[in-house]
Amino acid sequence: MARNEVGFIFDLDGTLVDSVYPLPGALPLLEYLTRTGIPWAVATSGNLDVARANLELLGVEPQAVPVITRDDVKRAKPDPDLFLAAADRLHVDVASAAIIGDSIWDMLAARRAHGLGAGVLSGGYGQDELERAGAIRVYEDPADLLRHIDEIGGRA
Amino acid sequence: MARNEVGFIFDLDGTLVDSVYPLPGALPLLEYLTRTGIPWAVATSGNLDVARANLELLGVEPQAVPVITRDDVKRAKPDPDLFLAAADRLHVDVASAAIIGDSIWDMLAARRAHGLGAGVLSGGYGQDELERAGAIRVYEDPADLLRHIDEIGGRA
Repeated sequence: MARNEVGFIFDLDGTLVDSVYPLPGALPLLEYLTRTGIPWAVATSGNLDVARANLELLGVEPQAVPVITRDDVKRAKPDPDLFLAAADRLHVDVASAAIIGDSIWDMLAARRAHGLGAGVLSGGYGQDELERAGAIRVYEDPADLLRHIDEIGGRA
Repeated sequence: MARNEVGFIFDLDGTLVDSVYPLPGALPLLEYLTRTGIPWAVATSGNLDVARANLELLGVEPQAVPVITRDDVKRAKPDPDLFLAAADRLHVDVASAAIIGDSIWDMLAARRAHGLGAGVLSGGYGQDELERAGAIRVYEDPADLLRHIDEIGGRA
């Protein structure tokens, strides 16, 4: 199967949605990725039902997106298993994958996967904490990420 | 072809030259690399004529050095293409290459290439900004880099 050059992997809750609301810019961000043909996936520590409900909040057909949950892998974050499995499902080299998360566990797991971790501040962790855990960039929210997406590989 | 153990890749302008002058220590730095047999290349967002003129300012025969420019690759920095192409031309594993730049774009591109980005302050960006964008070390200028070159792989 052909390899994709880049791919985006999202920790869903705190990154694209905040419990019951989409985060600012989450919908345009996903529309941008889809429109430009950049594959994306969800890798979440939560269960599949929650992930599907969250994707519906975002107006995304759950069956259309690879969703990796805790049940699919042996070890939870900060082990790299979730992100490695997501990259595999996207047919993308994890080294070229942007891994978007809102916690230091996401950034540690991204670094241990040898992916490119980027943080969003919507999870309550500070920019400094996320950077120290390995984030190559930190954004305010999905809208801010979309404005600077070329920094982390989101070029059309 | 045999692989080189290490190599140095320079973003030229702001790193070795400042528009029309060599930066402090740039000539001794290049002489050191050449004398100790450490291969080095230039990867610049500028065009070939400017790169060649800058190499002449440094007393370097332009034909003697691999020069990768924007025209040689698909995507500009902060995509990693320029640095990956330079490592390829040096026959060095990019993971062992010191990538010297003066901007946050250089450091992001170095990180995305999975090389070892090191910053110089001559470009106007601060040490903190360069480190946050992924620099493993930041030096005042090429003279300072030469004094500490063992830190980033420049051992004879």
